[in-house]
Amino acid sequence: MSKFSPRARVVTGVAGLAVVGAATFGALSANAAAKPGGPAAVSPAKGLITTQHLSIDAASKAAQAALDAGEKAGQHISVAVVDRNGTVIVQLRGDGAGPQSFESAERKAFTAVSWNNKTSVLVNNLQQNPTLKDIPGTLFLAGGVPVDSADAPIAGIGVAGAPSGAMDEAYAQAGAEAILK
Amino acid sequence: MSKFSPRARVVTGVAGLAVVGAATFGALSANAAAKPGGPAAVSPAKGLITTQHLSIDAASKAAQAALDAGEKAGQHISVAVVDRNGTVIVQLRGDGAGPQSFESAERKAFTAVSWNNKTSVLVNNLQQNPTLKDIPGTLFLAGGVPVDSADAPIAGIGVAGAPSGAMDEAYAQAGAEAILK
Amino acid sequence: MSKFSPRARVVTGVAGLAVVGAATFGALSANAAAKPGGPAAVSPAKGLITTQHLSIDAASKAAQAALDAGEKAGQHISVAVVDRNGTVIVQLRGDGAGPQSFESAERKAFTAVSWNNKTSVLVNNLQQNPTLKDIPGTLFLAGGVPVDSADAPIAGIGVAGAPSGAMDEAYAQAGAEAILK
Amino acid sequence: MSKFSPRARVVTGVAGLAVVGAATFGALSANAAAKPGGPAAVSPAKGLITTQHLSIDAASKAAQAALDAGEKAGQHISVAVVDRNGTVIVQLRGDGAGPQSFESAERKAFTAVSWNNKTSVLVNNLQQNPTLKDIPGTLFLAGGVPVDSADAPIAGIGVAGAPSGAMDEAYAQAGAEAILK
Amino acid sequence: MSKFSPRARVVTGVAGLAVVGAATFGALSANAAAKPGGPAAVSPAKGLITTQHLSIDAASKAAQAALDAGEKAGQHISVAVVDRNGTVIVQLRGDGAGPQSFESAERKAFTAVSWNNKTSVLVNNLQQNPTLKDIPGTLFLAGGVPVDSADAPIAGIGVAGAPSGAMDEAYAQAGAEAILK
Amino acid sequence: MSKFSPRARVVTGVAGLAVVGAATFGALSANAAAKPGGPAAVSPAKGLITTQHLSIDAASKAAQAALDAGEKAGQHISVAVVDRNGTVIVQLRGDGAGPQSFESAERKAFTAVSWNNKTSVLVNNLQQNPTLKDIPGTLFLAGGVPVDSADAPIAGIGVAGAPSGAMDEAYAQAGAEAILK
Amino acid sequence: MSKFSPRARVVTGVAGLAVVGAATFGALSANAAAKPGGPAAVSPAKGLITTQHLSIDAASKAAQAALDAGEKAGQHISVAVVDRNGTVIVQLRGDGAGPQSFESAERKAFTAVSWNNKTSVLVNNLQQNPTLKDIPGTLFLAGGVPVDSADAPIAGIGVAGAPSGAMDEAYAQAGAEAILK
Amino acid sequence: MSKFSPRARVVTGVAGLAVVGAATFGALSANAAAKPGGPAAVSPAKGLITTQHLSIDAASKAAQAALDAGEKAGQHISVAVVDRNGTVIVQLRGDGAGPQSFESAERKAFTAVSWNNKTSVLVNNLQQNPTLKDIPGTLFLAGGVPVDSADAPIAGIGVAGAPSGAMDEAYAQAGAEAILK
Repeated sequence: MSKFSPRARVVTGVAGLAVVGAATFGALSANAAAKPGGPAAVSPAKGLITTQHLSIDAASKAAQAALDAGEKAGQHISVAVVDRNGTVIVQLRGDGAGPQSFESAERKAFTAVSWNNKTSVLVNNLQQNPTLKDIPGTLFLAGGVPVDSADAPIAGIGVAGAPSGAMDEAYAQAGAEAILK
Repeated sequence: MSKFSPRARVVTGVAGLAVVGAATFGALSANAAAKPGGPAAVSPAKGLITTQHLSIDAASKAAQAALDAGEKAGQHISVAVVDRNGTVIVQLRGDGAGPQSFESAERKAFTAVSWNNKTSVLVNNLQQNPTLKDIPGTLFLAGGVPVDSADAPIAGIGVAGAPSGAMDEAYAQAGAEAILK
Repeated sequence: MSKFSPRARVVTGVAGLAVVGAATFGALSANAAAKPGGPAAVSPAKGLITTQHLSIDAASKAAQAALDAGEKAGQHISVAVVDRNGTVIVQLRGDGAGPQSFESAERKAFTAVSWNNKTSVLVNNLQQNPTLKDIPGTLFLAGGVPVDSADAPIAGIGVAGAPSGAMDEAYAQAGAEAILK
Repeated sequence: MSKFSPRARVVTGVAGLAVVGAATFGALSANAAAKPGGPAAVSPAKGLITTQHLSIDAASKAAQAALDAGEKAGQHISVAVVDRNGTVIVQLRGDGAGPQSFESAERKAFTAVSWNNKTSVLVNNLQQNPTLKDIPGTLFLAGGVPVDSADAPIAGIGVAGAPSGAMDEAYAQAGAEAILK
Repeated sequence: MSKFSPRARVVTGVAGLAVVGAATFGALSANAAAKPGGPAAVSPAKGLITTQHLSIDAASKAAQAALDAGEKAGQHISVAVVDRNGTVIVQLRGDGAGPQSFESAERKAFTAVSWNNKTSVLVNNLQQNPTLKDIPGTLFLAGGVPVDSADAPIAGIGVAGAPSGAMDEAYAQAGAEAILK
Repeated sequence: MSKFSPRARVVTGVAGLAVVGAATFGALSANAAAKPGGPAAVSPAKGLITTQHLSIDAASKAAQAALDAGEKAGQHISVAVVDRNGTVIVQLRGDGAGPQSFESAERKAFTAVSWNNKTSVLVNNLQQNPTLKDIPGTLFLAGGVPVDSADAPIAGIGVAGAPSGAMDEAYAQAGAEAILK
Repeated sequence: MSKFSPRARVVTGVAGLAVVGAATFGALSANAAAKPGGPAAVSPAKGLITTQHLSIDAASKAAQAALDAGEKAGQHISVAVVDRNGTVIVQLRGDGAGPQSFESAERKAFTAVSWNNKTSVLVNNLQQNPTLKDIPGTLFLAGGVPVDSADAPIAGIGVAGAPSGAMDEAYAQAGAEAILK
Repeated sequence: MSKFSPRARVVTGVAGLAVVGAATFGALSANAAAKPGGPAAVSPAKGLITTQHLSIDAASKAAQAALDAGEKAGQHISVAVVDRNGTVIVQLRGDGAGPQSFESAERKAFTAVSWNNKTSVLVNNLQQNPTLKDIPGTLFLAGGVPVDSADAPIAGIGVAGAPSGAMDEAYAQAGAEAILK
């Protein structure tokens, strides 16, 4: 059976930058330099940046904690965790959660990480800049909280489906706190 | 005029993980710990991973080099550079490039970074798994090359618009090599 | 703060069918009959059907088990669990999983639950009916497995990102087995 | 001719949870246990939930009754019935109904089932939370009514196309009442 | 409450062509000529054509008959009826029908009315013109039948969800025959 | 070369309703009755309705007249004519018209035919029902005018790109009047 | 009434490049230099290129000629003319044309201008590069012809709806020839 | 390897208008007249217009200058440059820029070129015409500036991601000025 190159495990060090130049196809060799015409290295200083992200384990833990908080309160909610680029890492549709909650949760998370603040705070900004809410992917409704590392937003957690945005936010906050030390 | 929290510069160290808990809104303070209810820190070991990315400067340099290679050959091309998540970092529509080239370049870059190989190689895999090409966002057509760091794909460069995929690939390769040390 | 009617917990019995006729707004009263003009009951025999679904807890458990199986094998994968209607219940993007894997996992799960079979089996059907793969939302690529209850499909589990579809399927299967008694 | 596994009739009992493990393809056998490697059973208590839905017969009856009510009043309307997940079950485009009415009806039904209330009531909530209307799939305009079972929303009926939302709502209500006992 | 102009009942005669020139708003007067600046008439010969369509009653009857035929055979199917422009008139999601069936039914109906033939016949044309299936909105899979009036296609009926396309077509045909005299 | 059944010319009489039952494929015979298993006739009274439409010649004439009116005034505009179902019949992008004008013109035409009134009038209705503008496909901005036949809207003409909506409307009106007798 | 800056007529000379720097709003003055902070000029040699396009009058003439050719042959077709960037300039839906024809015509025109050749020729290239047809927006089906100026493609004309692609191409060709000297 | 016709370099003179009539396929000959049945010339006066555009070099220079201005101020921004038709020429995602910034930048650029003014000015027009912001593709938020040539808008530059729209606009303006003479 044909096999595609597996994506190597997440880099923890910087061995350099490389471009696959060989026409070989199969399991990626452990040593890029061994591939003729394979990935060549570049000086990290010339073009590499390093960013922090939530691991899937941490993101799952946060999402589950938010869901649990909602369920404990007898609410049917959906939860989403997005990374610093707004890409979904985890998404959970709680039992009995309304159909509007799934994408709402994602958009709240997206909005929180975009401006590095809670959506319950960001919604107040619409009074002065009402067209901010026209930006694609956003939802200015309470229930989204950002997660920071070194003052930079690295993730957003969004919750939707409870009777009020304040409740949604409380569950999202519970999710965030579950991954705090 | 209302101000949104600026996104702090890319983190280079790990100060911990935080959740914005305060309702304050404005310029993010330099010291998260100073914000009551503000971002709290988590143990990096508990949930943070670090990934390498091309800086916008490196990505722009690569894209421009690919475009220049095409122009030098008298070809009208479009160029795209996407990151490890398939998100576009740079996109250039060359003078006179055909309308089909813009999204083609993006999809070739997406495909190359998805399987960590050149699309000219990946297209051969369709003989055994023809439905691979039905995966959304992909384009199995020569002209896409991956960029690696420590054997993991961190970016994809795609070129489209030249009379043959081999030419597209040569320009994409020139772009990749421009950021090699 | 304005409150929306919370969605009551998932019904476990059938009290009848009702239509909200009152203009009142707020927390849904426990006794629908108490609301003037509120939800009226219908005879279950006249229009209600009962269906089985995976709870979010079961779906999360399955998704996590699939992800764990992939990680144990050193693969970077994404996982999706969809219900009998193809709606996503859980979605997980593994660390380092390729960008193509997220939607691929969802489509494999969708395809498996649509025809109540593994996608590794369904792909063989394309030899006789090649246009089946043109049905929106489907992906005929190994890695999707259905979950049944009383012979009816009630969920689909999809995995994508490993070097081969056989590996993807093995992890999806591990996820399914995690919720078997 | 190639045959796909038919979806067995809607389950009325719970025989357990199963995963299709066999590579056989064809008509689903009546006895899952008979399939080697086929669906295995799980304990219902470990992961199954039961939900109530409108049958297609009940949903069609409701939609037709709504349409009839509109036609009797000389109005040209469209009607939609969605389930608890917002998925369309029945959709009817009345003779001469305006083109805007078809999707409007679906969105009104979606909105009603999302918050378990009439859209004529829900629209008032926008005064305090104006961004609720930015949630994808919603339409806060009179003409949508929820259908409940045991206080949980199980369907939404939406009507659009009449000169006023009050008229649309009256027809939707007529549809809902047609399936009341 | 504000009222919109109701759409007058479907025309059965041709009184002329008119443009609303008045700024008045409300119930459309019965006599267009009475509205100052209102719709003016044009000579029918100068720009009007007359087309035949299925009424919503006929379309519903056909869709229901198709659904009944499927249910009688123990199959879970979805049904769609589209008009000569490919616009959906009726759509029904049968109890237990697979999620892939809903849009499949619509596309089969669309394809049948587009080329005025059964999709089981049209699929054979792909041997000579395989790219026909790349036309947006189409699905070349058995289960779609056209309805003609005076040799011109006026509607398409599509069925999906049964184990074979031949079965889908039989039910669609049953739907069509239900409106034959 | 494979041939598809041509769509017969627009019916001007009603010969009955038919379903293609034959598997033959090719040029449609002139006499449907001659096709074994071919389209069968239904009683018109049982399911056919007749509607009036603008011919392509009339629609083109109207669109061109609107464009000419704009050009005569030195304005760069786009023009759209949609039928009673909101489907585009003619669309023209004037020289130098802004990119926003093309879809704006279509939406204005859609809105005008949806409520059978000028969009300059309909926009006033937003004061009482502000969420009307959330209906997909609509644009409540002056520049759209409906065309009626026997009091029923049969088309909409939309113009966009001029410095004011009043100017856009004047050109749309000129287009409408070009097809008045 | 508020007025927007009209787009000045298409430039026929190059007065320089400018950026609107003033906060004034209204009719654009004839002399940009007269606006304080208004558009400043750049040297054309530093950044301006000149391209040729079909005027709307020429594009309409071509589209109408193609439609007439089809109607003369008794065929029901749709016609599209796109510019060098694939943007639609004119689109016509002929009386009785199948619903699949409208977007097909646009895609054929897009494909022809993308590779500067007839789609009847381009389709042959799929034998060697079958994935070319996966490029978004394209349709490799006869009926599209490019229009050149000085060897560069400046427009594409697409026709769809006739029983064969050869017929579609003949009508598109007739459209193109109508604007030849 | 199969070769597609390269798009010839951007025309700088007008040699006439041509239609590819030959079935030959390959590199476009330098002399169109030499191709039998090839592109024929039309009189420029009969259908050609000339428009000014930013070259990719000028657009890239402007985008880079805007990005540099933002980075110098310590802000994380995205930049887009669109042509007179709203088509993206260059798009840059700055290091650490929020995910909302990428499409925001494009829409601001689109809006600026659509009405030939800064978006900080255009947003004021919403007071009188609030539905202008419902036009697809637009974003009425400061940060977009138009580029003119001979009083006609030929491009738009958009910036997003800084804490205020005024800052975004300053960087966009810096980008525009970089290509001023």
